[in-house]
Amino acid sequence: MPKEIYLDNAATTPCDPKVLKEMGPFFGEIYGNPSSFNDSGRKARKALEDAREKIARILGAKNQEVIFTSSATEANNLAIFGIIKTSKGIVAQPQVITTKIEHHSVLEPIKKLEEYGAKINYLSVNKEGLIDLNEFKKVLTPETILISIIYANNEIGSLQPIKKLAKIIKEFKKDSEYPYFHTDASQAASHLDLKVNNLGVDLMTLSSHKIYGPKGVAALYIKRGTKIEPIIYGGGQEFGLRSATETVPLIVGFAKALEITNSKRQITNNIQEKLREHFINELKKNFSSVKINGPENPKDRVPHIINLTFPGIENEQLLLQLDKRGIWASAGSACTSHEIEPSHVLTAIGLSKEASRSSIRFSLGRQTTKTGLDYVLKILPKVVKKIEKLYPKNLKKHYYAR
Amino acid sequence: MPKEIYLDNAATTPCDPKVLKEMGPFFGEIYGNPSSFNDSGRKARKALEDAREKIARILGAKNQEVIFTSSATEANNLAIFGIIKTSKGIVAQPQVITTKIEHHSVLEPIKKLEEYGAKINYLSVNKEGLIDLNEFKKVLTPETILISIIYANNEIGSLQPIKKLAKIIKEFKKDSEYPYFHTDASQAASHLDLKVNNLGVDLMTLSSHKIYGPKGVAALYIKRGTKIEPIIYGGGQEFGLRSATETVPLIVGFAKALEITNSKRQITNNIQEKLREHFINELKKNFSSVKINGPENPKDRVPHIINLTFPGIENEQLLLQLDKRGIWASAGSACTSHEIEPSHVLTAIGLSKEASRSSIRFSLGRQTTKTGLDYVLKILPKVVKKIEKLYPKNLKKHYYAR
Repeated sequence: MPKEIYLDNAATTPCDPKVLKEMGPFFGEIYGNPSSFNDSGRKARKALEDAREKIARILGAKNQEVIFTSSATEANNLAIFGIIKTSKGIVAQPQVITTKIEHHSVLEPIKKLEEYGAKINYLSVNKEGLIDLNEFKKVLTPETILISIIYANNEIGSLQPIKKLAKIIKEFKKDSEYPYFHTDASQAASHLDLKVNNLGVDLMTLSSHKIYGPKGVAALYIKRGTKIEPIIYGGGQEFGLRSATETVPLIVGFAKALEITNSKRQITNNIQEKLREHFINELKKNFSSVKINGPENPKDRVPHIINLTFPGIENEQLLLQLDKRGIWASAGSACTSHEIEPSHVLTAIGLSKEASRSSIRFSLGRQTTKTGLDYVLKILPKVVKKIEKLYPKNLKKHYYAR
Repeated sequence: MPKEIYLDNAATTPCDPKVLKEMGPFFGEIYGNPSSFNDSGRKARKALEDAREKIARILGAKNQEVIFTSSATEANNLAIFGIIKTSKGIVAQPQVITTKIEHHSVLEPIKKLEEYGAKINYLSVNKEGLIDLNEFKKVLTPETILISIIYANNEIGSLQPIKKLAKIIKEFKKDSEYPYFHTDASQAASHLDLKVNNLGVDLMTLSSHKIYGPKGVAALYIKRGTKIEPIIYGGGQEFGLRSATETVPLIVGFAKALEITNSKRQITNNIQEKLREHFINELKKNFSSVKINGPENPKDRVPHIINLTFPGIENEQLLLQLDKRGIWASAGSACTSHEIEPSHVLTAIGLSKEASRSSIRFSLGRQTTKTGLDYVLKILPKVVKKIEKLYPKNLKKHYYAR
């Protein structure tokens, strides 16, 4: 039995050793404050700006269009609150368009906007987790200030048609500056094109710890000329948009991580697509009843997320049994794993509460091997049988009570 | 000549090697997401909660009263916006009391509150940078929602009478929950008592990178029962008050750094008080005209900040000449070093624009030695003479133009 098989890469990824190496000096000898007017500060400042340029180049953006934040959550909050703040006095009631399957770091700030009086259109998705462009066109109005739509969903891996959306928005807005188009690309960055001009977005969130970089750093791409206000005020760092002493070591690591991810993207996609296909085909041989959630067509999804429903099996029990055997998977998104409620994403694609609570997510990483997955395939039938013995088909009371 | 003499410890401190060692495993094998329902997640969760407990113990607080943020700036913003949000509908016009010498991460969010319609009382300070308790009593009203007063000032090191303020506030508010009392203790943590019950504060900001911990992490102490709302929304981490995947390595490092700082506090104070005295006494022998900014009485200041005015000498020139010789000092606070405006703190204690622009800050650290300071004492007269030759007494045009 292997020591550990980590299949929770959609929640977070281990740091790439090359990233750790890159960060090293900035935890050591190069410790200055980038805002300090001395050599220690200038060295830190240079590293910071070099990292910004690396990332900007990969996005096909200008350096000043890359704003570093402490997390994708903060970047999403900055995009949403930052844009809406600028609409004061421009429309009576700002309108926002989003989807029912956004990450909590988009849904929660948008809920707040709703409390503050904004009108929100939550686009529904089909059973594969894809929005309908015609529904989108219907809700697009001159009062629409912001559109925030996730690029790749973190629970089921479905991709939204960002380029097509951008085209529709561009034609609609003509010379007006609103609505602005934001996408959370945290889960997409490891697998998809990030060139902002190809995508046509005004704002885009990137996360470091989803691409083998350190936790505690992320970025928001903000197209030049976009009207936006900060959510954190102070010393005026990050072009006045995000105050705080810059976390140079993490920013340097993030840039390195994105560089590596970008160079390995195509090969990673090919490997993971094959691994996924193998895993699902083999799985189906043992489980006639297992259901695969999310799009089937590779064009409509990222390859690393495999979301499965095992009818009648509590995901909590399944995770526990796998965990005991060194297999680390997850249920829904990491942020929501303490919730009693079933996943809002699985509900949105039509799963019942029970089905949602019988679903788990295996997310592959660059370190995932066929051997590892074969071990999981060997273990799964055993643990499922064990759970079926331990518990009756219908979900246990204690599950709801936890 | 020594390689480098870092005297900008008030801007940021190098990581303590013990802190780096403590963080190591969490950049490596322990990489899970603390919210993930598997062993990798549980290991990360345990490290996170152990770090929280370490810090809580040092503050004499409950674990749930310690909220991790990405920076002291974010912690200050959370305290200020988070408290004011809760006052909606409680008072017609919320009032805030602060000082003229707060850090930008307090002044800027408070400026925003002013734009939103809050009434702000900016307490003035005397020539030593100390507020007047009677002036404070005069502006304290039933509409006062928040009081935010810095513990130790980052530019001149002056201490405000936090305990006395807390006593006055407690007597004033009786059974009412407002006003809440917040202090930014970022610059104080390395030298002063942090027991929240002794201080009597409701909220207190701590910064990791000012106490030989990593950049990118800080904490806000929030007394149990305090009414506060988040400023960043999402997965609901940090007891719902600060969403985002927790930066476990940095949090672990921060806790270790505070532990070390706490254990070394008394000896550090004694050493730095002696070094300061030596430095100033020797300095006066060479510079009859040099002025020491900030309190003289050790009871009214932290020992590590030495703010000096060299009449007629541009601080930019002085820093440049020192920098060339491996001496790293600073002007004002790091965050403001790109500003054209003179320091708001030095202005508040009565310095003219010219005097302010002739002032520099040497801030001592645990790594500062008498040898290092003696080298600075040897170099200073030379570089000052050089600048006096290079430039006329009155400040250069280009200086205002930069």
